[in-house]
Amino acid sequence: MASIFTKIINREIPGHIVAEDENYIAFLDIMPLVKGHVLVVPKQEVDYIFNLEPEVLSGLHLFAQQVAKAMDKTIKCTRIGVAVIGLEVPHVHVHLVPLKAMDDINFTRPKLKLSNEELAEIAERIKGGL
Amino acid sequence: MASIFTKIINREIPGHIVAEDENYIAFLDIMPLVKGHVLVVPKQEVDYIFNLEPEVLSGLHLFAQQVAKAMDKTIKCTRIGVAVIGLEVPHVHVHLVPLKAMDDINFTRPKLKLSNEELAEIAERIKGGL
Repeated sequence: MASIFTKIINREIPGHIVAEDENYIAFLDIMPLVKGHVLVVPKQEVDYIFNLEPEVLSGLHLFAQQVAKAMDKTIKCTRIGVAVIGLEVPHVHVHLVPLKAMDDINFTRPKLKLSNEELAEIAERIKGGL
Repeated sequence: MASIFTKIINREIPGHIVAEDENYIAFLDIMPLVKGHVLVVPKQEVDYIFNLEPEVLSGLHLFAQQVAKAMDKTIKCTRIGVAVIGLEVPHVHVHLVPLKAMDDINFTRPKLKLSNEELAEIAERIKGGL
């Protein structure tokens, strides 16, 4: 069965997409730790990041670098943190999280609930930094 | 002033090194979240991961992939998690953290205190998986 991320890639369910190319996509996490929390995903549906082919893995991080630079320009934060956990959705995803403090990237914290309008505004802002 | 990681690279202070090549090094975090917590560091002393040149960034993640595969073989865990935070030591470091649960990669948790002997044994075990 297609992962929830593949469904976003295929436009079967909506996503607040900020960047996309042939092999990768970046969209907002709809249960963000902080405002501007982005997921970067390879279009190839692989469960575990270290099972990616080396060229797909390096391409993923280079794509994430471009997105993170746009986030640094457009989201108030000290820097962009990175996390790959993968205990939930079985499709590789790199979390890019705007950080001000260590606790901003603590995944055991309650998630924010943002409106669709707020998410759309944040996605547009990041796209403007690309 | 040289970072604490540059001092480990230069053998000015000891480290439990598990892998090293011309450009990158991996050693145990001496304040680990869990047993087998590794740091992967570029020898070039840059503060912020997204300021690395793209080829250094991709090389860093490919080096980390090799270390993570060795950790998967030798450390009991569900998978290896990845985090880059960078609010403390101003020298890029990728955390590779053996995960069983989400809280294993919560950096606000108290760190483990392991003896030098335990750390040395863990480092040898990971080296055996490379």
